[in-house]
Amino acid sequence: MSDDDFFTPVSALEMPRFAGMPSFMRLPHLTLDSPRIDEVEMALVGVPWDAGTTNRPGPRHGPRQLRDLSTMIRAMNPVTGVAPFTLANCVDLGDVGPNPIDLQDSMDRIENFYDLLTKRGITPMTAGGDHLVSLPVLRGIARETPLGMIHFDAHTDLFDSYFGGFRYTHGTPFRRAIEEGLLDPGRVVQIGIRGTAYNTEDVDWGEAQGVRIIRIEELFDRGIPAVMAEAREIVGTQPTTVLSTSISLIQVMLPAPGRPKSAG
Amino acid sequence: MSDDDFFTPVSALEMPRFAGMPSFMRLPHLTLDSPRIDEVEMALVGVPWDAGTTNRPGPRHGPRQLRDLSTMIRAMNPVTGVAPFTLANCVDLGDVGPNPIDLQDSMDRIENFYDLLTKRGITPMTAGGDHLVSLPVLRGIARETPLGMIHFDAHTDLFDSYFGGFRYTHGTPFRRAIEEGLLDPGRVVQIGIRGTAYNTEDVDWGEAQGVRIIRIEELFDRGIPAVMAEAREIVGTQPTTVLSTSISLIQVMLPAPGRPKSAG
Amino acid sequence: MSDDDFFTPVSALEMPRFAGMPSFMRLPHLTLDSPRIDEVEMALVGVPWDAGTTNRPGPRHGPRQLRDLSTMIRAMNPVTGVAPFTLANCVDLGDVGPNPIDLQDSMDRIENFYDLLTKRGITPMTAGGDHLVSLPVLRGIARETPLGMIHFDAHTDLFDSYFGGFRYTHGTPFRRAIEEGLLDPGRVVQIGIRGTAYNTEDVDWGEAQGVRIIRIEELFDRGIPAVMAEAREIVGTQPTTVLSTSISLIQVMLPAPGRPKSAG
Amino acid sequence: MSDDDFFTPVSALEMPRFAGMPSFMRLPHLTLDSPRIDEVEMALVGVPWDAGTTNRPGPRHGPRQLRDLSTMIRAMNPVTGVAPFTLANCVDLGDVGPNPIDLQDSMDRIENFYDLLTKRGITPMTAGGDHLVSLPVLRGIARETPLGMIHFDAHTDLFDSYFGGFRYTHGTPFRRAIEEGLLDPGRVVQIGIRGTAYNTEDVDWGEAQGVRIIRIEELFDRGIPAVMAEAREIVGTQPTTVLSTSISLIQVMLPAPGRPKSAG
Amino acid sequence: MSDDDFFTPVSALEMPRFAGMPSFMRLPHLTLDSPRIDEVEMALVGVPWDAGTTNRPGPRHGPRQLRDLSTMIRAMNPVTGVAPFTLANCVDLGDVGPNPIDLQDSMDRIENFYDLLTKRGITPMTAGGDHLVSLPVLRGIARETPLGMIHFDAHTDLFDSYFGGFRYTHGTPFRRAIEEGLLDPGRVVQIGIRGTAYNTEDVDWGEAQGVRIIRIEELFDRGIPAVMAEAREIVGTQPTTVLSTSISLIQVMLPAPGRPKSAG
Amino acid sequence: MSDDDFFTPVSALEMPRFAGMPSFMRLPHLTLDSPRIDEVEMALVGVPWDAGTTNRPGPRHGPRQLRDLSTMIRAMNPVTGVAPFTLANCVDLGDVGPNPIDLQDSMDRIENFYDLLTKRGITPMTAGGDHLVSLPVLRGIARETPLGMIHFDAHTDLFDSYFGGFRYTHGTPFRRAIEEGLLDPGRVVQIGIRGTAYNTEDVDWGEAQGVRIIRIEELFDRGIPAVMAEAREIVGTQPTTVLSTSISLIQVMLPAPGRPKSAG
Repeated sequence: MSDDDFFTPVSALEMPRFAGMPSFMRLPHLTLDSPRIDEVEMALVGVPWDAGTTNRPGPRHGPRQLRDLSTMIRAMNPVTGVAPFTLANCVDLGDVGPNPIDLQDSMDRIENFYDLLTKRGITPMTAGGDHLVSLPVLRGIARETPLGMIHFDAHTDLFDSYFGGFRYTHGTPFRRAIEEGLLDPGRVVQIGIRGTAYNTEDVDWGEAQGVRIIRIEELFDRGIPAVMAEAREIVGTQPTTVLSTSISLIQVMLPAPGRPKSAG
Repeated sequence: MSDDDFFTPVSALEMPRFAGMPSFMRLPHLTLDSPRIDEVEMALVGVPWDAGTTNRPGPRHGPRQLRDLSTMIRAMNPVTGVAPFTLANCVDLGDVGPNPIDLQDSMDRIENFYDLLTKRGITPMTAGGDHLVSLPVLRGIARETPLGMIHFDAHTDLFDSYFGGFRYTHGTPFRRAIEEGLLDPGRVVQIGIRGTAYNTEDVDWGEAQGVRIIRIEELFDRGIPAVMAEAREIVGTQPTTVLSTSISLIQVMLPAPGRPKSAG
Repeated sequence: MSDDDFFTPVSALEMPRFAGMPSFMRLPHLTLDSPRIDEVEMALVGVPWDAGTTNRPGPRHGPRQLRDLSTMIRAMNPVTGVAPFTLANCVDLGDVGPNPIDLQDSMDRIENFYDLLTKRGITPMTAGGDHLVSLPVLRGIARETPLGMIHFDAHTDLFDSYFGGFRYTHGTPFRRAIEEGLLDPGRVVQIGIRGTAYNTEDVDWGEAQGVRIIRIEELFDRGIPAVMAEAREIVGTQPTTVLSTSISLIQVMLPAPGRPKSAG
Repeated sequence: MSDDDFFTPVSALEMPRFAGMPSFMRLPHLTLDSPRIDEVEMALVGVPWDAGTTNRPGPRHGPRQLRDLSTMIRAMNPVTGVAPFTLANCVDLGDVGPNPIDLQDSMDRIENFYDLLTKRGITPMTAGGDHLVSLPVLRGIARETPLGMIHFDAHTDLFDSYFGGFRYTHGTPFRRAIEEGLLDPGRVVQIGIRGTAYNTEDVDWGEAQGVRIIRIEELFDRGIPAVMAEAREIVGTQPTTVLSTSISLIQVMLPAPGRPKSAG
Repeated sequence: MSDDDFFTPVSALEMPRFAGMPSFMRLPHLTLDSPRIDEVEMALVGVPWDAGTTNRPGPRHGPRQLRDLSTMIRAMNPVTGVAPFTLANCVDLGDVGPNPIDLQDSMDRIENFYDLLTKRGITPMTAGGDHLVSLPVLRGIARETPLGMIHFDAHTDLFDSYFGGFRYTHGTPFRRAIEEGLLDPGRVVQIGIRGTAYNTEDVDWGEAQGVRIIRIEELFDRGIPAVMAEAREIVGTQPTTVLSTSISLIQVMLPAPGRPKSAG
Repeated sequence: MSDDDFFTPVSALEMPRFAGMPSFMRLPHLTLDSPRIDEVEMALVGVPWDAGTTNRPGPRHGPRQLRDLSTMIRAMNPVTGVAPFTLANCVDLGDVGPNPIDLQDSMDRIENFYDLLTKRGITPMTAGGDHLVSLPVLRGIARETPLGMIHFDAHTDLFDSYFGGFRYTHGTPFRRAIEEGLLDPGRVVQIGIRGTAYNTEDVDWGEAQGVRIIRIEELFDRGIPAVMAEAREIVGTQPTTVLSTSISLIQVMLPAPGRPKSAG
């Protein structure tokens, strides 16, 4: 951690929440060319892209709205007492600019940016974007070693294709990621799966690969502590990504133990 | 059931949800004159009528909005594994056109349409509309034999009259239905009754007729399985109607065992 | 209680909810000069003022919106069977007019109005407004004897100051009230405290004064009955104020036993 | 005019616009039983009723919303220099309570209230409500002498019937009023008629009775001063009603010369 | 024209506007397999597709919303006296189902559908969708003979490419259409061009091809009659398409003189 | 002007409008400590402050919303052909942080920031905020020489006080500015004054000082070119500020001829 307060979020006790440029969590906004970039350990990154949606568009506006609303959040978790931004040097690295009229070109742009982050040893936290965002992100950060995944969502996103064989959609990213060796299916757990279904193709395929799928009914029956204990056991201590997908996607890469530079 | 896929909802794996005419559940839209009407077993019907409201209007727009939003729903229930539209030939039969400036004329129009459905042996599922919609629907389907009813609502709708003796409102349909012999009060259960009250006139009258009224506090205390088991016991195996009333009313006529034509 | 129905809310069985001047709960709207003011036991008062907010403004519009929405509420609680407005003569006394461009002048105007109510023996119920509203209200009603308080909120509002020493904000009213002897900290309980935190300064100070702070996690663990039993024990039978603060603040002064004039 | 400021609207230089009970124009709210009712010359009246609409409902909420928004208006017209409320004693007389589930009963209630105003010599200004509101208002104020009318609207509201012969709708009030002798068609002018049409039945009937119909194209061609000069000439100096109908209806009864009590 | 009223829009004098399936203009909804399809002269078609937008998405929802709102429109133009649906047999042919995750596949699907319409001699009217919709539509209807065009818009949509050479966007369709020989630039007029600009590349290229570009300032200076007279002269009497693009695109193919089957 | 493209707004032909941090006009976001601050000639500054409003609050959210929406604007004016950001080095300098609970402290903070800009020779363009924002801005930039002003607004904001003598509100800034010698009333013109009025005190006082007040009726009668020619003549060639106030305030300081550093 740095000695000064450069990486400390602006407090609303000093500057009103509605004032100032709305960076994620009121952290400093840097680019890969900025002076103190080498001190950065974690980066919040926006991926304003929703070309994978087969349905209602709009998640491309997610990063800007999430930045705006994040200015309402205070810096300490009152239950755990943890103040996350005192544990690592965090910044807002801005958005990866997609190409909204070309899906493949956008996937390349996103993968390339995350590849740069990997090379610099910066752990990313992503705000999307529709769920297809996860695929190029994983390509950029998991080329060498497959990751585990804890995935909170209504849907598995494990389908094969839509509209007669089209394979890159918001319903297919984790099928592709497992096929490409970016995720280790034996260390993948999906929590909260629910809602009306097309069929059981996604669940059948996932379970055949070893993915653990925990429906919302099981979560309600067993309770959050039991389910989360199982999830931690499944992913173990190797590098793991965590995703929570409501309207827009938030994806965090959890570093493996010992990874933080500031701890080194 | 028909051998072809005529009665199968359009899947969003083939046609995006935002495309196509928004029929209920993306089922085929037929009228009583359409070629394959004789194969129809269940019909979704809109009743865009809210002349019984004593308060805020708008449920007349319910059927169109419910159609639009129903295009978001997939065809299989993931918990039970049931895909309802594979069990009976279902269609959207459009709306009953009400007369928005004459309450009695509208009640006649609705009753007449449901009488036609009854004569053709088509089991209706209704989207309203305010709660008064239930009265002319029951007149059309329960003239010969009183029905049982499972009713999910905040209010009993068992009041006698409003504004000095006016007897046809959204707060009175089931009082009228019991008086007219359309509902068998000993087979009526109302679940979830709650909210501020005028007085106890509605509950007192209903319980005197034998209606079982389960307030929300009792539901929370005993749990959903116990309450639903009691509800099933109350209505038994004779024909029963099920209503869920939030903003707009959804009413389904449950056929008695052995009724579906396709089972014959 | 009066013998006629002057203090009875208008019923929606007689006058539609959307009709008529929207006074609180459809009670009569009086001023301190009105003929029957001497019969009034409780008064609903609006304080349309939000100058203490350090964040998003708007609660100044609270009283008018709460009046409008209160016309949707019926007069009897169906669980307890209590019809509150049959127990005391209640009216809507309108708004205290604040000075939206001067915080201190507004505090004086509010204090003075509540001082008048105290002198007339009218128990107030307040609709704000941001949380700073509570301070001048307490100055007006608790000058002689400190009150107990049951406070439902996400935040303690026990901070010392914002923006470099400014002491009158929506985050500081109960610190000031305890300092000024308006609240008896040993009879104050705060229920539901939650959400991200700046630090622990507010909680530390409050607990040091003897305030009982019950976080939302404790409420979920122990249940509402146990927590409310503790809260009643804490405040005892001496005069107590109850606050529920969501967007706008609602504050009720609970009279001590034997206080209502109609009981005398 | 009264000598004191009882009939003067509250100024926002003294009391903020968002504070206080939202009466029309911040005038005093009286009822027909109030002490100073005999001094009243003009009354603003709400008629929250939309049972005549054949289309989207909602104008029943018009009076409450118009009251709320009227608190934004200042008391002087800067172009003419006229401050209307210094010319006559004006008050808000509240709403006529309609019966939202019975069209004829509502028409009777409205007519009876306006008949009372006529007998007391109070000139009404009405905020509706849908356009059918005009018919019972005219029955209440024009039984003895037919009125002239200046009507600003997109539609003539001169149709005969809807839905197979139903004669009381928002599209028929002025046909009924002319048939009933409440309007003198030779002193009726309708300005701004526009929009897609069913047919020409309304216009043909109106012009056959002598109504002057000025379409929006003619207004644009000739200009406002020329059209308004013609309108004034058509209605002359006998009692005339003026209506402007956008979402909700505003209707003013213009007194004949010499009518104001305060001028007597 | 047909002798019966099959092709007549439902009137709101008979069926309320909020009732019934919301087809365009309340016309009959047919498909290319429907019994009376051979009598159809004009078809309203939805193209719910916005993959060409470089900015805010959403026009994919345009056709459904336009259908819903079109139920508010009456069948006669009161200025001209023309009732369009009495002049040709018109229907709603539903939507062309796009592939929201593949731009080229969607362009093929759209072109193929319009090619079918051309072969059947049905003149289409299109509701989009973003402006790229026009390109596959033109490919489907103008393969043999280039069309003239009257285009009402803020932008020329004559740019070459975005994001480094990508040529199919909502800003480029008419550049492509001219390059592909689908539009005759000498018979193209663009009216109302306005708003901030990237540069002059689009205008320069268009004018070099012979396109007549009329900015909004020129329209205001010369007036609508003069500009429209010039526009009619530019397109002449050969087949021409007319587009009006606000949020969603509406495109009509004007048949050349003598084209209507019903006139044959 | 700088030789590189550092001060060039990001083009939506390269980066989609919805992507990237939303600075004003997509200009670089600098602070007074940034490396290239000495090259800056004009700065866009946000003042998120609305403590002067006597009515509805909210303009404190103006700067953030204006930044967001400014990302929709292209860099060239198509009528004049001017691309403003090629004429001077412009940046977004972020917000002046106000103190939302203390009016005088906020005025000091704003004045101090603008005083810094003046000392550095940076010409500011301000986005507010309510109209009181103008007073501390003028104190910061016009201490030495009174400015002329072209003011587009509905109101003169020349009142003396509200609520019994309170002198700092959104209705009084220019009265204060003239009294303090910050504006030269003989070089002030207010255009578009309209709407209902309290009285004529503001206009009378302003005209007595020599302010030229052009009501909206005069603007419509004489036309924009004539009025703007008069306005230019009034302010002459000395330093002048231009304000346009709709919901939020935009204020530009027009440099006197020869002022731009890049021209030097």
